[in-house]
Amino acid sequence: MMLTLLDHIGVFVFAISGMLTAADRSLDILGGYIIAFITALGGGTLRDLLLNVDIAWMGSIVQVSMVVAGGTFGILFRSYLKRLRRTLFIFDTIGIAIFTIIGVQKGLAHEQFGLTVVFLGMISATFGGLIRDVLCNEIPLIFRKEVYAIPCLLGGTLFFLGNELGWGDALWLVWVSIAVIITLRTLAVVFSWELPLIREIRK
Amino acid sequence: MMLTLLDHIGVFVFAISGMLTAADRSLDILGGYIIAFITALGGGTLRDLLLNVDIAWMGSIVQVSMVVAGGTFGILFRSYLKRLRRTLFIFDTIGIAIFTIIGVQKGLAHEQFGLTVVFLGMISATFGGLIRDVLCNEIPLIFRKEVYAIPCLLGGTLFFLGNELGWGDALWLVWVSIAVIITLRTLAVVFSWELPLIREIRK
Amino acid sequence: MMLTLLDHIGVFVFAISGMLTAADRSLDILGGYIIAFITALGGGTLRDLLLNVDIAWMGSIVQVSMVVAGGTFGILFRSYLKRLRRTLFIFDTIGIAIFTIIGVQKGLAHEQFGLTVVFLGMISATFGGLIRDVLCNEIPLIFRKEVYAIPCLLGGTLFFLGNELGWGDALWLVWVSIAVIITLRTLAVVFSWELPLIREIRK
Repeated sequence: MMLTLLDHIGVFVFAISGMLTAADRSLDILGGYIIAFITALGGGTLRDLLLNVDIAWMGSIVQVSMVVAGGTFGILFRSYLKRLRRTLFIFDTIGIAIFTIIGVQKGLAHEQFGLTVVFLGMISATFGGLIRDVLCNEIPLIFRKEVYAIPCLLGGTLFFLGNELGWGDALWLVWVSIAVIITLRTLAVVFSWELPLIREIRK
Repeated sequence: MMLTLLDHIGVFVFAISGMLTAADRSLDILGGYIIAFITALGGGTLRDLLLNVDIAWMGSIVQVSMVVAGGTFGILFRSYLKRLRRTLFIFDTIGIAIFTIIGVQKGLAHEQFGLTVVFLGMISATFGGLIRDVLCNEIPLIFRKEVYAIPCLLGGTLFFLGNELGWGDALWLVWVSIAVIITLRTLAVVFSWELPLIREIRK
Repeated sequence: MMLTLLDHIGVFVFAISGMLTAADRSLDILGGYIIAFITALGGGTLRDLLLNVDIAWMGSIVQVSMVVAGGTFGILFRSYLKRLRRTLFIFDTIGIAIFTIIGVQKGLAHEQFGLTVVFLGMISATFGGLIRDVLCNEIPLIFRKEVYAIPCLLGGTLFFLGNELGWGDALWLVWVSIAVIITLRTLAVVFSWELPLIREIRK
């Protein structure tokens, strides 16, 4: 299945991103792999806990292997990757797009409410990074850079609505939803879109 | 059912408190709603995870709506609410009282040990705020202001004992337990009751 | 059963360690007991959540009692214990060794993958301390002192392989695995073994 392959790519890329963050924090190698693991699989773990179903990675030697591969890749090509911020951004954006769709699909498969389904997509995509930031003792990026979560919410809603309209088995719906998330996030970064701070409203 | 209505009020009030905390941390709007969500529903989520039952909010469009309503209310009336610290305190205290009783009830419904049941009440009432503080990169308030958790433990114990004595269906037991929690916390704040620090004992 | 007794000892010792950490952070007594609880039972709680089984401490009045006993012991003998860093280290090391083996056993009992089983052992042993550090607003020790987690991974792997070879019921396998973890960690501390930092590799 195409989505399974995409899932593995998402895990691999998120593991790289986790390892690079850990390197910036002066962690040692094992700390780096743990952070890579949590970044890549933490969002899906929370999603599965909330759904009260088996945790996906616990039954998948492939997903754990992708974390190890991504983390090792991150260590070996660290200085090279740093110069490729744009490449990394693209992979990371592909990752959150894939994880959003997989989260929404899993929510639909377990017959959750529409709103809950879309939340599960966002949680799958963003909470791995959120837990990573908490463990590294920082206020999570997601609370400051909304461009990260808003495209997930919109793309997840689109995919959910498409399913409601009966196009759940259509592969084009997957691709369009992923494309929407990638496009929105790219536009947001390119044009520096930002949500207003709470305190800026109705002072 | 009366408790369901109280539950919604608790969620609404906790969402306001989450949004106001987020505003103080310079978060943007989406970050504010996420913090409001976690403050209001995080304690109940952990309770349901520990009990291995369906997460309450995932099947309740009303609870999610109450978070959105409370968060929006917090944004719109922020400057007004700040002058009303006393009003907010009252609502917050009502909130932890309600959440404690609901947590104890759920623990009893799933036939847990007495001590576990009381813990579940305290977790329902306080861990949403605890997770909020961790996400905002602060040492949780609960570890410094015991007046927050002690009334929950005492009121929860009272409600548990009343159930053991066969008054589980009596509405007056709910009201007395809630009143005890509210009274204890109010007295604790008014008279600045504080638990001793660990290091002050047996120096 | 021998392992159950060891488990209680592990909980007792970890509760002491949690209380001592909390004392250093100027927490009050209740905060101290909550940190003691999370340090001692947090790793096992996460393990059971991931396995989607009943949380061990929720059905065990003994485990909760051991937390209270360990925490109280920590308060009463705090100044004395501080002079006994070596004694505490030994108990703590016994604790992670026991928790690793119990985690691996539980993973095997629920027929998980080999890699997952070993991870569950490490999570049981180390994530209580990790959550404790996050709540106290520090970057978790485990990310900087790998000597903590590596012995768990190696000893857990040994115990897992012994089980695969059919020695699962042999008590000597338990003792050898525990001895390996204790020995490795002691050697690591005595000789100051450290893993390289990520940024030191392939600069």
